[in-house]
Formats: sequence, structure tokens, C-alpha cells
Amino acid sequence: MLNTRVLPPNDSAHSTPLLIKNLLLSGKRYERSQEIVYRDISRYDYATFNQRICRAANALSRAGVKPGQTVAVMDWDSHRYLEMMFAVPMLGAVLHTINIRLSPEQILYTMNHAEDIFVLVNSEFVPIYKAIEGQLTTVEKTILLTDGDEKTADLPGLVGEYEQLLAAEEPEYEFAEFDENSVATTFYTTGTTGNPKGVYFTHRQLVLHTMTQAGVLGGLDSVRMLGNRDVYMPITPMFHVHAWGIPYTATLLGVKQVYPGRYDPELLVELIKREKVTFSHCVPTILQMVLNTPSAKGHDFGGMKVIIGGSALNRGLYEAAKSKGMHLSAAYGMSETCPLISNGYVNLEIEAGSEDERATYKIKAGVPVPLVEARLMNAKGEFLPHDGKTQGELVLRAPWLTQGYYREPEKSDELWAHGWMHTGDVAAIDSMGFIEIRDRIKDVIKTGGEWISSLELEDLISTSPAVKEVAVVGVPDPQWDERPFALIVACEGYEMDAKTLRDHLKPFVDEGRINKWAIPTQIASVTEIPKTSVGKLDKKRIRTEIAEWQEAQAPFLSTL
Amino acid sequence: MLNTRVLPPNDSAHSTPLLIKNLLLSGKRYERSQEIVYRDISRYDYATFNQRICRAANALSRAGVKPGQTVAVMDWDSHRYLEMMFAVPMLGAVLHTINIRLSPEQILYTMNHAEDIFVLVNSEFVPIYKAIEGQLTTVEKTILLTDGDEKTADLPGLVGEYEQLLAAEEPEYEFAEFDENSVATTFYTTGTTGNPKGVYFTHRQLVLHTMTQAGVLGGLDSVRMLGNRDVYMPITPMFHVHAWGIPYTATLLGVKQVYPGRYDPELLVELIKREKVTFSHCVPTILQMVLNTPSAKGHDFGGMKVIIGGSALNRGLYEAAKSKGMHLSAAYGMSETCPLISNGYVNLEIEAGSEDERATYKIKAGVPVPLVEARLMNAKGEFLPHDGKTQGELVLRAPWLTQGYYREPEKSDELWAHGWMHTGDVAAIDSMGFIEIRDRIKDVIKTGGEWISSLELEDLISTSPAVKEVAVVGVPDPQWDERPFALIVACEGYEMDAKTLRDHLKPFVDEGRINKWAIPTQIASVTEIPKTSVGKLDKKRIRTEIAEWQEAQAPFLSTL
Repeated sequence: MLNTRVLPPNDSAHSTPLLIKNLLLSGKRYERSQEIVYRDISRYDYATFNQRICRAANALSRAGVKPGQTVAVMDWDSHRYLEMMFAVPMLGAVLHTINIRLSPEQILYTMNHAEDIFVLVNSEFVPIYKAIEGQLTTVEKTILLTDGDEKTADLPGLVGEYEQLLAAEEPEYEFAEFDENSVATTFYTTGTTGNPKGVYFTHRQLVLHTMTQAGVLGGLDSVRMLGNRDVYMPITPMFHVHAWGIPYTATLLGVKQVYPGRYDPELLVELIKREKVTFSHCVPTILQMVLNTPSAKGHDFGGMKVIIGGSALNRGLYEAAKSKGMHLSAAYGMSETCPLISNGYVNLEIEAGSEDERATYKIKAGVPVPLVEARLMNAKGEFLPHDGKTQGELVLRAPWLTQGYYREPEKSDELWAHGWMHTGDVAAIDSMGFIEIRDRIKDVIKTGGEWISSLELEDLISTSPAVKEVAVVGVPDPQWDERPFALIVACEGYEMDAKTLRDHLKPFVDEGRINKWAIPTQIASVTEIPKTSVGKLDKKRIRTEIAEWQEAQAPFLSTL
Repeated sequence: MLNTRVLPPNDSAHSTPLLIKNLLLSGKRYERSQEIVYRDISRYDYATFNQRICRAANALSRAGVKPGQTVAVMDWDSHRYLEMMFAVPMLGAVLHTINIRLSPEQILYTMNHAEDIFVLVNSEFVPIYKAIEGQLTTVEKTILLTDGDEKTADLPGLVGEYEQLLAAEEPEYEFAEFDENSVATTFYTTGTTGNPKGVYFTHRQLVLHTMTQAGVLGGLDSVRMLGNRDVYMPITPMFHVHAWGIPYTATLLGVKQVYPGRYDPELLVELIKREKVTFSHCVPTILQMVLNTPSAKGHDFGGMKVIIGGSALNRGLYEAAKSKGMHLSAAYGMSETCPLISNGYVNLEIEAGSEDERATYKIKAGVPVPLVEARLMNAKGEFLPHDGKTQGELVLRAPWLTQGYYREPEKSDELWAHGWMHTGDVAAIDSMGFIEIRDRIKDVIKTGGEWISSLELEDLISTSPAVKEVAVVGVPDPQWDERPFALIVACEGYEMDAKTLRDHLKPFVDEGRINKWAIPTQIASVTEIPKTSVGKLDKKRIRTEIAEWQEAQAPFLSTL
């Protein structure tokens, strides 16, 4: 360490720690009369929002919530969830956002592992909660959330119904200051194997992430993605990495926020129209659903800006959205990264190029945002060149990465091998700093000594007019080690078999974009492709299903 | 302190400290081919900028600069200055930005007090340096900066000329990581009494200030003040609170930057035109000079955005700029605050009002930016209400305030009395959070038991078509304790005496905006008003001069 002139850290007498309460206060003073909307169910202003958070803090304190304890939420995406994203950490407690799309067994596992003591349960999830309740080892008290009129429920340890509890409390609370390195939130990420793993973030990390996100969404790129007069609606669940952190950023800026509850495409389009939503974010499959839903037909989404992450943004979707007036921008991150790591950007050099070149960069993972360092690493822990060609595992350093997996020392060491956070993604980085994700390390198809990116193959296959959706995985092959296998949902009026697919891909082989070994020799024409709880292609399940089909010689399989 | 779940701070294995080097890297990866311009003298891109900082770091290291040591700069606003704002702190050393407008005695005082060891001296300042050199107690080595062809100078301890030193070095440097609480910069602020006082800022503070400023300038307000395609030119000197921190923010975003050297209005307008400057910041008096300079006549500044701080933005200047297409926004801060504290903002409620009401808010000091807490305090250390009327001293907490004055324990304790940083400004805060600066505590005019704001009086007087510039101070009065005294520079073709002034102010008394005791009974019609080194009204000198004039019964004095 250099012998710099170091001041005492966190001199609380003459400085303020980075705490989530300061994000909240900013929003109120910018726009006390701006709205926060929950479907048709609730609508109030930022002044009320702040008061409700104080009421909630009083109610949670009265119920016995202590700093350092964990408070879990099982809810749809709502104003209540947003309130808990502030009230719980502002009390010094830890918010556990439960992934309600997991199986009951997995939910049970995460709640016991996170040591939840208080749980807020939406009435619709009471049956799930009751099913696992007997095996919960740490929970003491529950609070009922409801979109209806229920004032009680058959819940062990029930303190009361949320709205009634809030109504009984004062709208003021003096939130204390504490160490900015206090854990604020935790949630569980599901890998392809083993139990879900708990990531966790501190106040400092969330504040830094929020401030950086505000700068990136406001000041960067020719389009201002998020400004004070935008209307924001998330289409990534709030349990999943804080809806990408954007509710915190929107609150900081005093932006109007709309919460849709659940992701029914018709409801989403209705809310977009009615509330004049101009900014959102989602995974590609959800945007596809929104664009394809009947009420979106003929609707002009002009001016709407959408950040796409979670999976690669393919060119077909980019163009489809553009034709409806939507401005898409790719971003990259993951549960372990809070999540913002990089985002789409058109620099001067790219801007000078053709529309086609610009689009090529728009759908990449973008350039690392401020304070993030991204490198490529090989299996020996050596750095690889940023030449746009060399592939390696993307590794990261930043002030807001999870410091490990909760109570998983071995997996934490693996995550942080060689002092860098390992993403498990294979990427290339070009000389301008653009990251291109080639594949998950475990999804790369190893065939005849070559590495084929399943993502690139999916991207090329998706350009066929016959293809509505596609997933490619490697399946074991005695001769080539692995061979690519494509699952395809054909568009209405089209059929797809291995030969048609080969004809579609042949020009890309001729162009040199892929080698001929990359052409899938086996395909399955299906009506649906398995997805994970957050809407990504579930390649683990796909591989299992293919193995079962192959054994059963399913009739929808086609081979060259 | 609450018993929260605290992680180890600055776990450098799994986190990255907030260091200035990370701000620099972001800019390069966003826009490696964007330009940094210094007058007609230098023009290069961000890739070169990064290389030059590495070369400079190599040169400074070779010259013997060690972490913790202080490196001082005496230069005009230039690309070299910008390079030092990064290279010096990135080495772990402390950058002292010398206020070249101070008297040689004051410069000497600050250099000895700051314990400067290395000094970079522009050839034009060699005479000043030589004049004080014999009394410098800590300086060991010097480096010559030049806009011309000089390769050497008669400077004791001369290492060499900057460009030659850079040319001899490698364009790479591996900057180490160190504690984010390391001091990065220092500079001296001149009060109205006593010696200049040294404020100082850490890497953490500057990074947090920069990230917040980026969010505020990008995401807030209906006008995006600073986006990636803006062209930035500072018109506040770089020695003064890092040119308000904006060079760091502009670098972070990869924005084109133009440095003007010195503040000759004709040169500024020429650079604005030629380099297509769209964003700047300055004190009101400088903007007035720019707008009044011959080459600005008839020029359309359409689209140019200017932040006004340092002194109150009066309505007259706001309207004059608007008529030339400039969008002005007020901001508030000071040397001790890094400086950003609050900035102009038009919220939904104000937006719904008249153009006149909107302008009223635009010229206030604005609302506190994220992470800043602002309160009003009385002399006993009690908080006062935010009702828009009650006046008190504005006190602050934020993560980027100076933790004291360097080696001035008593003044530091005064600055931080009651745990809040005291601004020395009298303000009111309204229920929406808008700060309105009423006056410096020491400039408030105490007359007949009333407090009159000298700023408000100046604002009202400035609305007269006869008035080009005005300053009001309190002068001792045996009967009333103090009485307001106005210094006025009349517009061409106008004359101004005490009676004309009374006639102009009478309607404001009738409206109830000021009471009749506020009407100055004595005025001086002058051709120039004394200013401080940073362009603010120098009320200390004004009071001294008035006392001298009164003694000499100067003929340009007019009384009622």
C-alpha cells in the first residue's frame, strides 16, 4: 500500500455515510407531488410515499424488527415492495426478496438459509407459505399483504395486515445513521446445479450503484434514457436483483413510477398506454411477448426507451422494436453484480458508421460503466488481450459486486478466484472496450476441438422469417464430443426441419461467420421453449428434455 | 450505533476503492477519439490524454514525487492543468492548485502552509515565483510549463520543461490502488479576514462528487445540462475548487473539453463559436462580461447551457442571457463543499405555474442534490423551520465536505460547530426544499433592529435600466447602527444618484417586498466595482474604500 496521506475513514462527525435513506430524501425534494402507481389499486405522491415508509418503519419496529435481522417479502411487483426496499434497510435490517417463481422447496431452502425472521406475504402466496411453513426454522412473525379486502389470514405469527398496520402509525420516523458497510439486501440466484446461492449488498454498494446508474442513464449516450419527466415501469421482477436497481435510481430522481404487479402482456401494454410509460427494462423474451400481444398491434411506442439485459439482445428483436418506435439499448449484468456492469453506447467512431454498424454495437453488452473494471481471463488466471477476437471468461472488479455467497465459503472463493469476480460468461472485448458476450462457459458447444457459441448460433437462426424462438445446446456425440442441437418454435404458417435450417445457415458459413461444424444436425420443432423463473432460456432443462426425447425417439425431432 | 450486519470496510480483495483513476478510465472507453482543446495551442484525443497522464506520472515519479507529498501548479486553465488533476492524485500525491490571482505574499503563504515540495510553473508566472522563491520553506523541485518555445527558465531546482519531460517517458503507467480516504487535492480559500485557509478533499470525496454531479447534470431537470455530445468549456478557474468539479465529470463522460487559458471575454466568445461550446459555468459578473463583449453582439448562443454560481443569479442577467438563447441554471456551493450542494430545478408544481414563477425559482440556489442534507441553524445551534420565510445560517452535511481547514484546528472546529458544516450564508428554505441565499452573515445590513439582505437589495436595484452593476454594503451609522450604501456602475447614457435610486425602489416598498429602511440613503456612482480573485464582489474592499471616500468627501458620492 502506498504511503498516502490518509484521513480517518467514515469520520461521521464531518462526513455522511452512504445510506439508502439519502436516496429516498432526494426524490421527495425534487418531486413531492410526482406519482407512484400500482396497477388500478394504488396511486399516491412522493410526499405520501415518504410518509408511508415512516409508517412502515414504525410498524416493523413495533413488530420487533431489529437491526441486523432479515425481513423477507413475498409479493408481486408493487408500491409495497418499493416501500420495503427502503424501510427495511433504513432500519438497519436486511431485506430478503424472495423469488416467488422458485419451487416451494427452493423457497423454503432460501428462507431458512437466509435466516428470515419476519415475512411479508401477499394473500395469493399464503397457500405456498402454508405448505412450507412447518419446515421454516427461523421465521417468527408474518405480515399480510393484499390487493383485496382481506384484513387477516390463517398465517402463523400474523402481526396484521399491512395497510391497517401503516394506518395505525405516525408518518414520521427518525432514521439513525450507521456504518455504510452494513448489509442492506439479499436474494438468491439459481445456478444450473445445486441449491440457490445468496448474494448480498451493502448500503454503500447500493448507493454507489444508484448514483452511477443515474449518471449513466441520464448523461450518457445520445438518447437520455432516464430523465426527470420520464415515466418508469419495471418489467423485470423486483425480487430479482432489485429490478436491476432502477427503482432506487428512479426514486433518487423523483421520477413517476408504475408497478404492474405481474407480467401479463396485455396488462403491461394497457399500463404503458394509460400511464404514458416511457422507460422500462426487461429480458428479450418478455419484450417479445409484449410486442406480440394483440393490444400492441398497431400501437406506436414512439419515444419509449427499453434496456434489454439478462440474455443477449438479438438483431431481429432490435429491429422489430425499432419498427414500433422503441429505442432499445443492451446492458449487461447479473445477480452477483447488483447488477449494472456495462451498457450500450454509440461513440463518435461508431456514430460515423452506417446504420447497420450502429445496430451491431447497440445489441452488444456495451462498455463497462464508470468504476467498473472488466477483463478477460483464462483458466490459469492469466489476462487475455482485448482484441475483439480472443475469447475468455469475463472477470470483474467494481465497488458494488457481492463479496461472496452467503454462508458458502467454497463457492465464494470460486467466485473470486485470482481476486476478480468470475461471471461464468465467455466474452471478447474489443479495442474500444465493447464487451461481446459469446456464451455461458457451460453452454459453449465443444465440437471437434472447436468452441461454438450457442448464442451466436441462436442469433443467426433467429434471422430466419420462419423462426419465432430458438435455443441451441450442445448434446453429447461419440465422434465429435458435442454437437449443436436446435429447439425451434416456428412462426405461424412455417415449418422447420434440419434441412431448412441448414439452407438458412449455409450463407453464414460461406461468409465465414460460422464454420460448417456449427450447423445443427438435429433439431426439434416445438411449441414452447423451457425458461427459467426470470424468463431466460433454461438450457439445463432443455438438455434433460432432449435426452428424454432422444431416448423416446420423439416424432418432432428432425436430423440431417 | 445500530447493531447492523457490518461487512469489513474496503475489503480490497472483493471490492474496489473509490479512486480518481477510475474516473479517467471511463472517459477513455466511452470516447477515445473525443477531443481536449487548449486555445490554439493544443488539441488531442482522449486516448492521447490517457497516455500523456501516464507519461506525466512517469516524469513526476522520476523527478522524485512520492505518495503523500504535495505537488503545486501555477498555470492558466489548460490541458496541462487537467492532466495534473489526474496524474498527481493518481500517484497518491496531493495536488495544490495555486490561486494565481492572490498577491505574491498570499501565494507564498499558501505554498509554505501547504508544504509544497514540487511546483509546476507557467513561464508567465516565473517572475512571481522568483519574487517569493527565497522565502519558500519546503519546495525542492520545479517544472516549467509554457505556451511558447521556452525549454528552460531561471528556476531553482528546475527538472525540465513539461513537454520535453513527457516526450522522454513511456505512455504506460500501472497506477496502484490505495485507501480511498487519501487526500487528493488541496487549495486555499480567501476569507474576508486573516490568512487564506486550506481545504482538502480525498479520492472518495471527489469520486462521489463526480458521480453525483454526472447524475444531476444528466438526469435532472427538463434540460439535460451535460450529455455525451455536449462541448464543455469552464469559465471558472481550475485553481478554484477544481473548476467546480466539472472537468472530472466531463472526463468521466468522455465529453469534448475546451480550456481557454484566461478569461478574456473576446477569446471566450471566439472559442464558444469555433469549438461549438454548449456547456459552461461561471459567476454572474463573468457572464455579464461575456454577453457585453463586442463579438457577442448579435451572436445566437442558442442551445448553450450555463450554470451560474459563486454569487446570486439576478433576474436581469437571467433574462438578458435568455434573450440570447442561453439556458441559465443557478447552483450553489463553495470552496469548502467541493463544491456542488444544490442546483436549480423546475418541479411539476413550478412547471405548472407562469413563466415568471418559473424564472423566480430558476434564479434561486435550487434544491440540495442527492446525498446532501441542508438545514437552517440559529446561533445557538438550534434548527429553524423550512417555511420559506425564517432565515438562518445554512448548515450542511454531505459525503464530500472538507473535513476542516488544513492545520487550523480552531477554525475547523468553528466550521463544524454542532456537527454541521457552517456556510456563513444566511438562507431560507421553503417547503419544497428550495434554498434561497439571502446574504453572507457578515454582509447582512443591520439597521434599526432589522436585518436587510444586501443581495436582495442588489437584485432589486439591478432591475433598473440605468444600472449596469451594483453592490450594497452596510456602513456604520451612529443612529441606526448600520445603513445601506450602494455602489453603482451606470449604463452608458444614464446617470444615477440617491434620489433616482429611491424613485426606482419606491414601488418595491409599496409592494411590501422591502421595508423603507432598506432604501440606501447614500450611493457612489463608480466606473468599476472591486472584485475578489474569483470575480465576486469584494465587500471587504468596498467597505474600506467607502470609508476612505467618506473621509475624503469624494465628489461622486450622492446622499438623500
